[in-house]
Amino acid sequence: MIYITRRERFNAAHKLFRPEWTDEQNLEVFGKCSNPNWHGHNYELYVTVKGQINPETGFVIDLKELKTIIKTHVTDALDHKNINLDVNFMKDKMASTEVLAVAIFEQLKPLIDAQNAALHSIKLYETENNFVEYFG
Amino acid sequence: MIYITRRERFNAAHKLFRPEWTDEQNLEVFGKCSNPNWHGHNYELYVTVKGQINPETGFVIDLKELKTIIKTHVTDALDHKNINLDVNFMKDKMASTEVLAVAIFEQLKPLIDAQNAALHSIKLYETENNFVEYFG
Amino acid sequence: MIYITRRERFNAAHKLFRPEWTDEQNLEVFGKCSNPNWHGHNYELYVTVKGQINPETGFVIDLKELKTIIKTHVTDALDHKNINLDVNFMKDKMASTEVLAVAIFEQLKPLIDAQNAALHSIKLYETENNFVEYFG
Amino acid sequence: MIYITRRERFNAAHKLFRPEWTDEQNLEVFGKCSNPNWHGHNYELYVTVKGQINPETGFVIDLKELKTIIKTHVTDALDHKNINLDVNFMKDKMASTEVLAVAIFEQLKPLIDAQNAALHSIKLYETENNFVEYFG
Amino acid sequence: MIYITRRERFNAAHKLFRPEWTDEQNLEVFGKCSNPNWHGHNYELYVTVKGQINPETGFVIDLKELKTIIKTHVTDALDHKNINLDVNFMKDKMASTEVLAVAIFEQLKPLIDAQNAALHSIKLYETENNFVEYFG
Amino acid sequence: MIYITRRERFNAAHKLFRPEWTDEQNLEVFGKCSNPNWHGHNYELYVTVKGQINPETGFVIDLKELKTIIKTHVTDALDHKNINLDVNFMKDKMASTEVLAVAIFEQLKPLIDAQNAALHSIKLYETENNFVEYFG
Repeated sequence: MIYITRRERFNAAHKLFRPEWTDEQNLEVFGKCSNPNWHGHNYELYVTVKGQINPETGFVIDLKELKTIIKTHVTDALDHKNINLDVNFMKDKMASTEVLAVAIFEQLKPLIDAQNAALHSIKLYETENNFVEYFG
Repeated sequence: MIYITRRERFNAAHKLFRPEWTDEQNLEVFGKCSNPNWHGHNYELYVTVKGQINPETGFVIDLKELKTIIKTHVTDALDHKNINLDVNFMKDKMASTEVLAVAIFEQLKPLIDAQNAALHSIKLYETENNFVEYFG
Repeated sequence: MIYITRRERFNAAHKLFRPEWTDEQNLEVFGKCSNPNWHGHNYELYVTVKGQINPETGFVIDLKELKTIIKTHVTDALDHKNINLDVNFMKDKMASTEVLAVAIFEQLKPLIDAQNAALHSIKLYETENNFVEYFG
Repeated sequence: MIYITRRERFNAAHKLFRPEWTDEQNLEVFGKCSNPNWHGHNYELYVTVKGQINPETGFVIDLKELKTIIKTHVTDALDHKNINLDVNFMKDKMASTEVLAVAIFEQLKPLIDAQNAALHSIKLYETENNFVEYFG
Repeated sequence: MIYITRRERFNAAHKLFRPEWTDEQNLEVFGKCSNPNWHGHNYELYVTVKGQINPETGFVIDLKELKTIIKTHVTDALDHKNINLDVNFMKDKMASTEVLAVAIFEQLKPLIDAQNAALHSIKLYETENNFVEYFG
Repeated sequence: MIYITRRERFNAAHKLFRPEWTDEQNLEVFGKCSNPNWHGHNYELYVTVKGQINPETGFVIDLKELKTIIKTHVTDALDHKNINLDVNFMKDKMASTEVLAVAIFEQLKPLIDAQNAALHSIKLYETENNFVEYFG
């Protein structure tokens, strides 16, 4: 078993808030992340796939195909978008890094597992100081 | 003459658009940066100050003071904010990296020049692939 | 189960030596790290916490609280300090990266486990080329 | 059990191709990586070793010895070389990152396991966007 | 006047040698960079353009156009190629970072100067430890 | 004229203080940098050399020779040392980044200018957030 990781990036806006709470409650729990007019990040996404090495190609998975899957099903939906408003797979969810990492994992899992390989993990950086990892 | 640089960071939302243009015109000129619901970035700001070394302290400028000036007059106004909507010194301006760099320079120039040193330049990263420099 | 990581930094002096050994013995085992007058590093500390996502906030742990715990109990004690001389939880210990990582883990473990989450690991960079990981 | 990692670097040329295939077949499967005249990379290699901390030194393994082992048995053989043509332990193998990571692991495993420690993993970056991990 | 920079990357093979010299002479002058079977690098290219800010767009230059110019005239010619053998604008030149930076500058200068902006400089990283800058 | 830069690194201890001042005065001016028991940093040093390209080699300066000059005259003197106590060319000087950058420039200037090239600048990082540049 060997693990290969592809890094992709997307730039998006979001805020952390619960619509049923007052602005004061949102500010108390989410701090400056609750700014009503949004803020944003350069997200870095690491997608790790595991499998056996194909003896003919030396590959676990063709990185060109992996790149296309991530772009088509994840980063095109997120890049230069508002995570709370514009992204189908984040509808009615909290736009936290944790919830976003799980949603990306669920988007990619069936698509990558159909490639003779398996999705191992998602690692998602919100800033250079904070990141989340999810293994399913 | 010696140059000292301080790096600070802020995370903000913005969009590039002209309100008097249609969405189609904005899309044609600004591409995905014109998304009506905003997107955002982790901006990195480098503030470079030049001056003589104070022989008593070995400093051009006290970095604690420089840090306080940048925070009070620039990054507190931008961090976790919407550059188009929330920032006084960007009111009625295009929220491009170029225009933002010039506006930050103009915020800091009089404050730093009052410190026995001079503001030399602003360098502003929007992503790991794009940055702007302004020298006044 | 999901994992969230916070990066913090501290700048400290240390040396590697055993007081009961001669300078020659220390030099032979520890090389230039045994310089009697100390040397130092910009340490980078990654604290990884695991837990369930709170459905109300989307958080595993409030990063503001995690940041406060790390600052109060670890980085305030280490930053701009001498690890061998100034740090209570390193008293009478070797100031190696391995021993420091274990000591930081033990400082943080009870405090983070009281937060409805669990400390998963400590990753500590001494230089860009060397780092240590400890999982308890 | 604690884990310590050493980063080393090497710059090498390679191509991905099967000599029994036509250039068209190689291009279809390996894309621009099949360029007959080679291309190359700045590889980054992370070698992770696990073990108990020696109470006398505070070390899992002496990093100077680890560095010498990696240099003598891996990076001297790869640095400023052609992976397909110049490297004994890659003879008759595909020069993919996956296959290279496995080969480096096999080179280092017996040498590091003789040091009162154990090789835990190899992590090999081909570019800033692609890396492979192998745990044996 | 304001300066904007775009980073691009390419992975290429090369060697440093003079065909009229013996292998021994090449080795003496160029060291391991003269390996007859080539080696390679992940090059990082920074293209800096200067000009006035267009008041309508907030741009010095449209980065999408700049990216297209760099790709079409520089990185497509270099990426996954052999600099000595495959690149028209490096024909009969030494494949050093210095010479390559000058050649890239000369490729881009007339194309960027036709955009109401001016090419200011090329910065080219060969490794994380070595880079070259050329201002024309 | 073309510019080439070499990055080197050293890890050192220092403190900022004036012996004729009380601890309170030192603390007021230098903050936590005045800790009597020292602290330290992983310094990053960028040495930039300018000159004409030698048409025979494609080089401004042989980087192997530049590396040897920097190592012999600067980094061997600083690495794993105490800047205030162990370094001849910093004797009786403030151990600030500004003063250290100037001292390194003065060490290197005559040695590099003897190489058919000229020292252009020293850039010295103390942390990822602070650096100094000196051009003579």
